[in-house]
Amino acid sequence: MASNPIGIIDSGVGGLTVVKEMMRQLPNESIIYMGDTARCPYGPRTSEEIRQFTWEMTRYLEQFHIKMLIIACNTATAVALEEIRESLNIPVLGVIHPGARAAISVSKKYKIGVIGTDMTIRSKAYEHALKTIHNEVDVYGLACPKLVPLVESGVIHGDLAEKIVANSLYPLQDKHIDTLILGCTHYPIIQPLIENYYNHKVKVISSGEETAREASAILDHTHMLNMSKDQPPIYKFFTTGSKTIFQSIAKQWLRMDDLEVETVKLSNVEYI
Amino acid sequence: MASNPIGIIDSGVGGLTVVKEMMRQLPNESIIYMGDTARCPYGPRTSEEIRQFTWEMTRYLEQFHIKMLIIACNTATAVALEEIRESLNIPVLGVIHPGARAAISVSKKYKIGVIGTDMTIRSKAYEHALKTIHNEVDVYGLACPKLVPLVESGVIHGDLAEKIVANSLYPLQDKHIDTLILGCTHYPIIQPLIENYYNHKVKVISSGEETAREASAILDHTHMLNMSKDQPPIYKFFTTGSKTIFQSIAKQWLRMDDLEVETVKLSNVEYI
Repeated sequence: MASNPIGIIDSGVGGLTVVKEMMRQLPNESIIYMGDTARCPYGPRTSEEIRQFTWEMTRYLEQFHIKMLIIACNTATAVALEEIRESLNIPVLGVIHPGARAAISVSKKYKIGVIGTDMTIRSKAYEHALKTIHNEVDVYGLACPKLVPLVESGVIHGDLAEKIVANSLYPLQDKHIDTLILGCTHYPIIQPLIENYYNHKVKVISSGEETAREASAILDHTHMLNMSKDQPPIYKFFTTGSKTIFQSIAKQWLRMDDLEVETVKLSNVEYI
Repeated sequence: MASNPIGIIDSGVGGLTVVKEMMRQLPNESIIYMGDTARCPYGPRTSEEIRQFTWEMTRYLEQFHIKMLIIACNTATAVALEEIRESLNIPVLGVIHPGARAAISVSKKYKIGVIGTDMTIRSKAYEHALKTIHNEVDVYGLACPKLVPLVESGVIHGDLAEKIVANSLYPLQDKHIDTLILGCTHYPIIQPLIENYYNHKVKVISSGEETAREASAILDHTHMLNMSKDQPPIYKFFTTGSKTIFQSIAKQWLRMDDLEVETVKLSNVEYI
């Protein structure tokens, strides 16, 4: 069981930032990833759609006897984490609580900004998570609809990219935050731009990195870390969209020369 | 059950650095602390003694129906964590694995230094924890017997303190570490001196801070976070030594005007 893979699901390629951290922090673990690229982005969709899509991916990965599921999409975490966690008998992690905990741990003034998709910000999931832990925290949520297209355009350097970041973050300028949570797994790709915008004066929390750490802690506490070093870990990627595009982005982000990608069709899967 | 206290044990006052982080990161949680000041330090003692003392403290705190136990002493964690975790039916955390995970998460070169007591370094507990997670990490352990007395002397500023830190860390100078784990819960008190010694070029990991974060993650995953805000948390401190000295140090470290301390006698408790 400890050698079984970890399942990671996302609305598209953003969750690969979590995969990258998992590979770095837990190099013995096998990973099966599914990105619902064909139906991405989830941000503007209804809760019911997001819930259904997230369940479809979960059911698909269950056939591989995953020992842990990570919902590496903030929007899907906000909508579906609790019910999936209740139903599965393996640990199920979202990206919101790890990000919230990390923010509480580094913030000194407890003035925390959160940027994400419309749905993530509207759900107030980060605000809820932060206030559950520390009720005196001030949380400033901001939807940044232009940042996912920026990341997906691939043009993440130069004047135009800097301008888009500056315009997106401007509404937070009078909030005097000391910590900013990247509440979307696409954003770590432009983390250097965001840190530069703040002149490195604001601590920027990448939920991917934090989730990988908590995954490690929970696997350790449930005695599920893969200790066997007999065979190298297996990485397998599924997408609902174009295999070629997914492969090209994944190879670049994960800095891997080659990786196995398969396109699958998901809809009409029974999910309850 | 979720409103039950968290138990924290240590060989003396060092574990108060963990308490401080717990109070900051989990302000709703009640804490019962026990410091075995009368038999501190544990570093030079035999494994059998450390094992017995750690069990005695554990049994004492169990009467308060603690919902989680944190062994906030690196030496006691190295010797007794596994067997206590096996025996208790609540989550039991040590400070070594959280520190190791945090180091893996921030290190870029995977060249990690660990400083601690003789026993902690000799046990190779950090090396084992680090290599379990990432087998290609280079770990350089260094016993720093002069740092606990420095912290306990209270004179933690000025030339002499800087010189003791510099002399203690000197043996690591040709190891080109990029991350240093403070493998003793006393050391966060002199963390600024250590960071200055490295000119802020080496990332310094405080196990207390990291342990508080993992405690939060595990309480969340086991649905044991205290959500009730009806009554303020309770903090209670026990010491096997002088109540007055303990109280004076604890008030200073925790920046509390007043706190409840009681001296108890522990030996001859049945522990298996």
